[in-house]
Amino acid sequence: MTTHKGRVVSDLSVSAYGYSAGTGQSEQRPFGDDAGDGWGNRLHSWMFETPELRQAELDRLASVGAFVMGRNMFGPVRGPWDRRWKGWWGDDPPYHAPVFVLTHHARDPQPMEGGTTFHFVTDGIGSALRQAREAAGDRDVSIHGGATTVDQYLAAGLIDVLRLHIVPFTLGAGTRLFDGVPPLDLEQVESRAADSVTHVTYRVLR
Amino acid sequence: MTTHKGRVVSDLSVSAYGYSAGTGQSEQRPFGDDAGDGWGNRLHSWMFETPELRQAELDRLASVGAFVMGRNMFGPVRGPWDRRWKGWWGDDPPYHAPVFVLTHHARDPQPMEGGTTFHFVTDGIGSALRQAREAAGDRDVSIHGGATTVDQYLAAGLIDVLRLHIVPFTLGAGTRLFDGVPPLDLEQVESRAADSVTHVTYRVLR
Repeated sequence: MTTHKGRVVSDLSVSAYGYSAGTGQSEQRPFGDDAGDGWGNRLHSWMFETPELRQAELDRLASVGAFVMGRNMFGPVRGPWDRRWKGWWGDDPPYHAPVFVLTHHARDPQPMEGGTTFHFVTDGIGSALRQAREAAGDRDVSIHGGATTVDQYLAAGLIDVLRLHIVPFTLGAGTRLFDGVPPLDLEQVESRAADSVTHVTYRVLR
Repeated sequence: MTTHKGRVVSDLSVSAYGYSAGTGQSEQRPFGDDAGDGWGNRLHSWMFETPELRQAELDRLASVGAFVMGRNMFGPVRGPWDRRWKGWWGDDPPYHAPVFVLTHHARDPQPMEGGTTFHFVTDGIGSALRQAREAAGDRDVSIHGGATTVDQYLAAGLIDVLRLHIVPFTLGAGTRLFDGVPPLDLEQVESRAADSVTHVTYRVLR
């Protein structure tokens, strides 16, 4: 038997990276299959740790003039819009601004309560960003996700600021940020520890 | 033309993850092919940002009673030991303690200056850890890398503490921490921002 009383530690320098969703998305599981209490909840529950954090997130959303999201972030429907899917967020989504959804299938705009309107863009990420910029005016445009959509904008050099919220668990498989994105230089602008999560803000260097 | 004056931001919750080396390791390129000034340098140059950080790293190494590393971290030689490779670190490596190198090819221990001795372990990660624990006594054992070796120990539930130094760039490809490791629960014990890097310490939960 060993008499070792020390710890076993590992110390690694790693580049910024992360999973943002599992596999097997469905209507019941927007973040894919889970191993217990749900990856989506675990990835995002930090927002609700304190009233201050919740408010900071709401303030951040309010500073955004328009959103772009991928179709899988909008919903589980694949192919033509044979269902009147209106997003995961109920009648009054938390966006309160235009949301441009990337899709290959045309659909009329879907107005919601509270100022959110989902617009469906079929002519690519550049077009969606242009429309979002026009709608946002002086406010920020948020490339809101999922990771696949963020990766497309990163690869095209179209994102200025990337904020990562690094949550203390690992996913064995899923959608990974930076997959297929050429090597990027980032500048760490801010790094802030909360109870369970580390928030890092990067400027994307050209 | 757009009149947009805001930024384009993206905000993602991601699980802890990271690349630790590129592909194509060689004697000249211990961290693999690079795209410019070398991934290895960029991953590790934070240690040298200030004398305090350098000293903190040296203190941390000094607190370790024994090291375990994979063969590729030890050197670029593959297959039988047909060269008298003594590591990347010169005659006086920075370990000053026993280092257990995982390999499929037996070799006599290689003593170095300054108290480092490389021991070559052919009977697996459990055996290497047992030998390192015996050598370490009350001090820590460091599962020193690379990521593939750390992953093997993580998957076997043999690591207590994981420290990540998250460096602000991305690698397009390479050796990734947590590849093939089943989902893990971590507890964020400490998170600390330095100028260019975020240091996060996780306790690995069983």
